[in-house]
Amino acid sequence: MHDPVADTPTPAAHDAYDTLVRRFARMGHIANALGILGWDKDTMMPSGAADSRAESIATLSVLHHGIMTTPDMADLLAAAPEPGDAWQAANLQEMRRLHAHAMAVPPDLVEAASRAASRCEMAWRTARRDSDFASLLPYLEDVLARTREIAHAKAEALGLSPYDALLDQYDPGTRQADIDPVFRRLSTQLPGLIADALEHQRAHPAPALPRGPFATAAQAALGQEIMRTVGFDMARGRLDVSLHPFCGGAEDDVRITTRYEEGDFLNALMGVVHESGHALYEQGLPRAWHSQPVGAARGMSLHESQSLLMEMQVCRSAEFMTWAAPVIATALGGDIQSPEWSADTLHRQVTRVRPGFIRVDADEVTYPAHILVRYEMETALINGQMTLHDLPGAFNARLYDLLGLRVTEDRLGCLQDIHWPSGSWGYFPTYTLGAMIAAQLREAAQKACPTLMEDIARGDFSTLLTWLRTHVHHRASSAAMRDIVRDATGAPPGPDAYLRHLRHRYCGQ
Amino acid sequence: MHDPVADTPTPAAHDAYDTLVRRFARMGHIANALGILGWDKDTMMPSGAADSRAESIATLSVLHHGIMTTPDMADLLAAAPEPGDAWQAANLQEMRRLHAHAMAVPPDLVEAASRAASRCEMAWRTARRDSDFASLLPYLEDVLARTREIAHAKAEALGLSPYDALLDQYDPGTRQADIDPVFRRLSTQLPGLIADALEHQRAHPAPALPRGPFATAAQAALGQEIMRTVGFDMARGRLDVSLHPFCGGAEDDVRITTRYEEGDFLNALMGVVHESGHALYEQGLPRAWHSQPVGAARGMSLHESQSLLMEMQVCRSAEFMTWAAPVIATALGGDIQSPEWSADTLHRQVTRVRPGFIRVDADEVTYPAHILVRYEMETALINGQMTLHDLPGAFNARLYDLLGLRVTEDRLGCLQDIHWPSGSWGYFPTYTLGAMIAAQLREAAQKACPTLMEDIARGDFSTLLTWLRTHVHHRASSAAMRDIVRDATGAPPGPDAYLRHLRHRYCGQ
Repeated sequence: MHDPVADTPTPAAHDAYDTLVRRFARMGHIANALGILGWDKDTMMPSGAADSRAESIATLSVLHHGIMTTPDMADLLAAAPEPGDAWQAANLQEMRRLHAHAMAVPPDLVEAASRAASRCEMAWRTARRDSDFASLLPYLEDVLARTREIAHAKAEALGLSPYDALLDQYDPGTRQADIDPVFRRLSTQLPGLIADALEHQRAHPAPALPRGPFATAAQAALGQEIMRTVGFDMARGRLDVSLHPFCGGAEDDVRITTRYEEGDFLNALMGVVHESGHALYEQGLPRAWHSQPVGAARGMSLHESQSLLMEMQVCRSAEFMTWAAPVIATALGGDIQSPEWSADTLHRQVTRVRPGFIRVDADEVTYPAHILVRYEMETALINGQMTLHDLPGAFNARLYDLLGLRVTEDRLGCLQDIHWPSGSWGYFPTYTLGAMIAAQLREAAQKACPTLMEDIARGDFSTLLTWLRTHVHHRASSAAMRDIVRDATGAPPGPDAYLRHLRHRYCGQ
Repeated sequence: MHDPVADTPTPAAHDAYDTLVRRFARMGHIANALGILGWDKDTMMPSGAADSRAESIATLSVLHHGIMTTPDMADLLAAAPEPGDAWQAANLQEMRRLHAHAMAVPPDLVEAASRAASRCEMAWRTARRDSDFASLLPYLEDVLARTREIAHAKAEALGLSPYDALLDQYDPGTRQADIDPVFRRLSTQLPGLIADALEHQRAHPAPALPRGPFATAAQAALGQEIMRTVGFDMARGRLDVSLHPFCGGAEDDVRITTRYEEGDFLNALMGVVHESGHALYEQGLPRAWHSQPVGAARGMSLHESQSLLMEMQVCRSAEFMTWAAPVIATALGGDIQSPEWSADTLHRQVTRVRPGFIRVDADEVTYPAHILVRYEMETALINGQMTLHDLPGAFNARLYDLLGLRVTEDRLGCLQDIHWPSGSWGYFPTYTLGAMIAAQLREAAQKACPTLMEDIARGDFSTLLTWLRTHVHHRASSAAMRDIVRDATGAPPGPDAYLRHLRHRYCGQ
């Protein structure tokens, strides 16, 4: 069928790269449309529009996939001469990687997997509510089977192991062989570190927080003020409300969300700074390469490093609270003089350690334990070393090893996350890789700019942002994540800076 | 180029219709996406996203056009056997009409016209501000030339006159030969009617309105309450704010906007009921035919009749204000007992007659004069009976005939509207055709349901909505507009009911 966005006849080799650039630009424009439609679905869309919206999103996704899988695409990718320019060469390489991912999986498997995921997500909502793993099992078996088929198909096409092929979808270039030693190291250190942190915390009880209610409008105005302060460009983005905070939207239109509770302003605020970290990365990508593969963010680990650097490394620090405490008190009508609005109070509140069952509620110290469990489970399941029947037992045993908590209901254990039911296998490790990279980048930035944290204590984020723009944001996908981290910090992603950070902040070491 | 949304190979004749249904459904899903992206552009989008959004909208429009102009489309439309079912037959007929419109104009002319319009819109903003027609002239010459080329190309393809070919884009099936006698009749009656209305009004001076400020939030809450009352389904739509009120969005997601002034709550409220009239039409279209041509609204005249029936015929009536006055007073913190919040005060305020230069500010009685002038000008210009050099003089002379106002600056005359600079020629008559049809439908509904206005005086819109659903909304594009109006009212669109309505409401006759 004739496609008006095509450039037929297939051009000669010397035009091949230009043709590819035009096609990927069109895919980028469709992706931007999908970004806004997705944001709208979670923030603005009336409930009755769900089916109509699903049809539009599906149609645009098919059109996007259709451009990627055009029959002459492989010829163009093969015919295109290696560009002399490094960015163009990296762009062509990314085009080839994305094309390989798209072509590796037969359309009927894509469809079967997406149907299995939709069914499983439905079953999961009930199963989690009823803490009934047995009722989810047949659906999750189906999702896992399809995911493993996809993993093997991509492994074949990309010359990777099945788990690495899944990982590569979220974190290009990262391999299980890179993660295993790092996570092993973490898992040996974590239990002792958590014990020390709790011990240290007992010696420093947290003072009482100011009591609400805090009007949503005032919290939103405060959120926007903080966004502007950390460097968010309000002319190229927005702040809105959704059930779960996220960063979405499109190029030059980065939209973050949070959720307000009138009784607790810190949750919404930490949501805003976390998503602002993601947004600053998107807003900092080189505009000259918009809508080209090389211009995209370099995977989920580095993306999460940007949100965690902003939230955990910077905005939960004593220095940030030195500047922020009076700003927050003023915005929420509190008394700047009173101890409950002091920087010390707020800092200690946002650094409380409370081991718990729920990953998304976990603090900075216990969070990695939740990820280590999930990573070990999903690698074993994908690699066929474990079956889903054994998942709850294995999950709970491992959580006990790491956190000392006994799961009594699966809704507090392996049923709590939507990732596996929705088919997102290979995603979990990026959270903790991101946390480690965040600490590593912060240490490097601090070393390069000794005034970094003093500047932040004055509400001046330009030192931090300038460094991040140069060493992370502006590089986009022009290099592998490991190389971006190595160039920025002198070492590949590792746990040392992260462990130093946790011991320093939580154990007073 | 391979297109994944195609169904290759081209199917046998007996499948042709089903194939067309699938393709038009896909175009419908893209149109829904474009509807949300357009709404977002005017309500939510940050300024910096303008270019990125324009790229996305252009790409989706090209994809939509590409499906319509697929080479085998003509064969499919020819091969499809006449369906026995009347709706399917009407659907096929609409498919052929839309395809003919799309194929009639060569792509390079479409592009040249759109470039000319963009340039002219830019020039128009300055020219209107400076009231400098001469500076606009070369750009408007270019737009008119391209528009006439398009008109002749479509006239050729559709077997219509050039002006009718343009009109057919906005109001399928309506012809200049239908409009001329009706508008001539109107133009002979209007000056006298306006004089009588002003005379009658002098005898009944309007009481003072309540003074503001009226908080935007309170006005918005009132707007939503009125929307629900008139029958707007809030689960399938929204109310938001934009510079100019509009009704947009998508299927099952009809989004209207208004603009709030703290000093005047009636403007925003009348904007809400006007757009709600459009929205009720969209929400009342048969869901079984969503995303099919036959399921779409039947042209701009009938669409405008729905907004004007709700705003002018119903919500500016004494009966509506009997119900609404206390609701409005309560919502805006007014005193229900005080005369300035009485139904009589509000009714008389929303039926004031004030001849003026600006069309969009015109009242119900003088509005048609603005349309008659524009219709006479654009038909003469498209049919080559006049040149743009003569436009200002002719425009001002004709406005003086009809309204007795002398235009001293073109920004108050032929420079005030964006329609011509943006290439929307053949659109203006649908406003006044809509006003006439609205009066005709209201009379017919009243005759069929004698309690219609008493029900509205109790805030019960179900009588009206039920009648409109049956006689207008549910018919969608299954018949020509003239036939829908004739079936509903016993006569084709004409000026009589409209003139009766104006004389009754404004001249006490």
